Amino acid sequence: MSATTLDYSQLYSDGQPDPAPRWAPFPKYYFVGGNNDPEQIPIEGLIEAAGSVLRREGSKLAIYNLGLGPQGYPGLRQFVADKARRHRGIDVPIDDVTILSGSGQGIDMISKLLVNPGDTVLVEEFCYQGAMNRFRKIGAKLEGMKLDADGIVIDALAEQLATLKARGVTPKFIYTIPTIQNPTASILPLDRRHALIALAREYNVAIFEDECYADLLWEGIEAPPALYALDPGCVIHLGSFSKSLAPALRLGYLISGWENMRRLLPLKGDSGTGALDQMIVAEYFSKHFDKHMGHLNGVLHDKLKTMVEAVEREFGSAAECWAPKGGIFLWIKLPAEVDVRTLIKPAADAGIQFNAGPDWAVSPANSSSHLRLCFAMPSKEVIREGVAAFAKVCFEQTGIPKHSGNVRHAG
Amino acid sequence: MSATTLDYSQLYSDGQPDPAPRWAPFPKYYFVGGNNDPEQIPIEGLIEAAGSVLRREGSKLAIYNLGLGPQGYPGLRQFVADKARRHRGIDVPIDDVTILSGSGQGIDMISKLLVNPGDTVLVEEFCYQGAMNRFRKIGAKLEGMKLDADGIVIDALAEQLATLKARGVTPKFIYTIPTIQNPTASILPLDRRHALIALAREYNVAIFEDECYADLLWEGIEAPPALYALDPGCVIHLGSFSKSLAPALRLGYLISGWENMRRLLPLKGDSGTGALDQMIVAEYFSKHFDKHMGHLNGVLHDKLKTMVEAVEREFGSAAECWAPKGGIFLWIKLPAEVDVRTLIKPAADAGIQFNAGPDWAVSPANSSSHLRLCFAMPSKEVIREGVAAFAKVCFEQTGIPKHSGNVRHAG
Repeated sequence: MSATTLDYSQLYSDGQPDPAPRWAPFPKYYFVGGNNDPEQIPIEGLIEAAGSVLRREGSKLAIYNLGLGPQGYPGLRQFVADKARRHRGIDVPIDDVTILSGSGQGIDMISKLLVNPGDTVLVEEFCYQGAMNRFRKIGAKLEGMKLDADGIVIDALAEQLATLKARGVTPKFIYTIPTIQNPTASILPLDRRHALIALAREYNVAIFEDECYADLLWEGIEAPPALYALDPGCVIHLGSFSKSLAPALRLGYLISGWENMRRLLPLKGDSGTGALDQMIVAEYFSKHFDKHMGHLNGVLHDKLKTMVEAVEREFGSAAECWAPKGGIFLWIKLPAEVDVRTLIKPAADAGIQFNAGPDWAVSPANSSSHLRLCFAMPSKEVIREGVAAFAKVCFEQTGIPKHSGNVRHAG
Repeated sequence: MSATTLDYSQLYSDGQPDPAPRWAPFPKYYFVGGNNDPEQIPIEGLIEAAGSVLRREGSKLAIYNLGLGPQGYPGLRQFVADKARRHRGIDVPIDDVTILSGSGQGIDMISKLLVNPGDTVLVEEFCYQGAMNRFRKIGAKLEGMKLDADGIVIDALAEQLATLKARGVTPKFIYTIPTIQNPTASILPLDRRHALIALAREYNVAIFEDECYADLLWEGIEAPPALYALDPGCVIHLGSFSKSLAPALRLGYLISGWENMRRLLPLKGDSGTGALDQMIVAEYFSKHFDKHMGHLNGVLHDKLKTMVEAVEREFGSAAECWAPKGGIFLWIKLPAEVDVRTLIKPAADAGIQFNAGPDWAVSPANSSSHLRLCFAMPSKEVIREGVAAFAKVCFEQTGIPKHSGNVRHAG
């Protein structure tokens, strides 16, 4: 590390974000981040895929975008189109699929396409923090859509759109995660999907459908077709390989008709997505997707059960869990008198990291007693220990929960 | 492809770039783009590397950034640090190395760190188009630094900085490609490197050193140490794996002290660079870099000779070639009466694509008779045929060259 020999303070441009801290390893009980289970990475399958795809097409690496254009490796786009048809009711040619360097890139691209500073964007009242941050960064004003156990409450949304219209406000788009909502892990039923699209068309509001978790469904649970399948003309569809396979790969995808796609492509801005990631995943998933997902979803469901049992054991009736239909996280409500923000520091001191509700909600007002716990990465043992440790911190700070396990705390 | 069912024209935000065209395959004589030779991709070496690195560390793919922080896979950062020490005189710990999703990302990050709209940036008078586009997009005003066969002319730069200072202008940074300059392929001598740094310190101007081509030197040619090696406190250093290995990978790197690095990291914005690309390249290059580069540089030098011979044969004394010391491109000056922009369309009609000088220069005024031809991707046969076809187009449009090969044109 060398000291600067210039006065850089005169050189930095305005509006810099906070500097990065030195990176530190994760704490012991790390219940945040969209990480996956390290034991479920199909290592031998990826090695076999690398060998076959590189022997067949490896020489193309010498050319930007493999010499095949900015929408990504056609083999992966074909896999996405096939998967979307088999599992999500979406029927598109690969020209309507673009591979992304992670789904966050798609959120940025769609934001740039649609948002002027000051524009209104509708998001679910409890919502993926990464999306809200990106929308806000580009200047969007966020309004929350009311949720229940089945996702967006349509009557409330209809009233909200009418009220906005009366105020002269047309939202640019509705951002929704209809299939395994983040953080509630609900699935929007078919009738609500049709009603949502009808509202979007009535008010000329685009729908931005984020299906990053849609591959992660518990056995026996079926999701209705994607919104994109029901009306491709008003929906832009986003997906990811971070949850179905591995977040370190940085692979996502957009599905959109050409009229919007041709405007989204110039906003990608990275001269293509890493080719080895694309090629190896395409080769592996083209042969093994259904088997991989069946196995992974069984493992994840099992970890969720472990976490729910631990929360029930340690928090008792003090914690209300939303019932996930898939995914990698559990959304929990504690009694209203608990402000989870006061737990962040003492939890960190005990080696625990969790997502505080206000970071995962449009309004801190109705989310200060909520939290999100991710269960895919930690082992079952760490889940059990970590939830117990968290209950202890919570009790010490707030007197809640009064019971943990078989122990009544001396409050 | 589905028609939109909304009126999207009401929804797009202001200032959209031009929509993308449908992608079309390359023309026959494709002399643009930083592509490499498809026959030199070390396919079996990459397959072997994939197997060993995935068996050793593949489970880490389940975690964002492999669970190792936002600066990238440590194995690749270690390789970069080792290579920089052995070949560029740079001695840094891996904390001063960050892996990028292509060097263009680094150009964006450094621009965001330093440029307010209206700020002045100094670039070489003939300069990489991608960098100029990115600087201009963020609002920089570009001023060209005079070049000769050895790169930046220091006396001219000293006068330019003094003149700017007299006008009250402090440039934010000097963007330079000192080792295999793009497009002239020159190498800045050591004494000019020291003089450049002295000027930067005198005027408090940062140096942004782009060494994307520095691994591509002809046998027997030695480059002086990197500017970063001479004064790490005033230089931010950029490198790439696109030229040494493969552009489809999207891998570059930044070297900087922590004071700037901690401000650059929040500007990366992509949640990490593709992990398979990073891991496989680290594993392969840690064992085979010098051998790979020695072979590749021999092949490239041979292709350059083929191109220079073809240009001499087809254009005779009408073409002056700058003499490359490495790299993948040839910078050519035609007689002043040839405006190469008038050749773009007829060349395209003949299946030829080239870089017109004005796209590779700060000022169209002194570059309209220049052009850049890339030689790494096309075969020698295509190089010979394509240069002949281009000479024919040029003659048909401008009457120049009067001789091609053994043929005197009936002008």
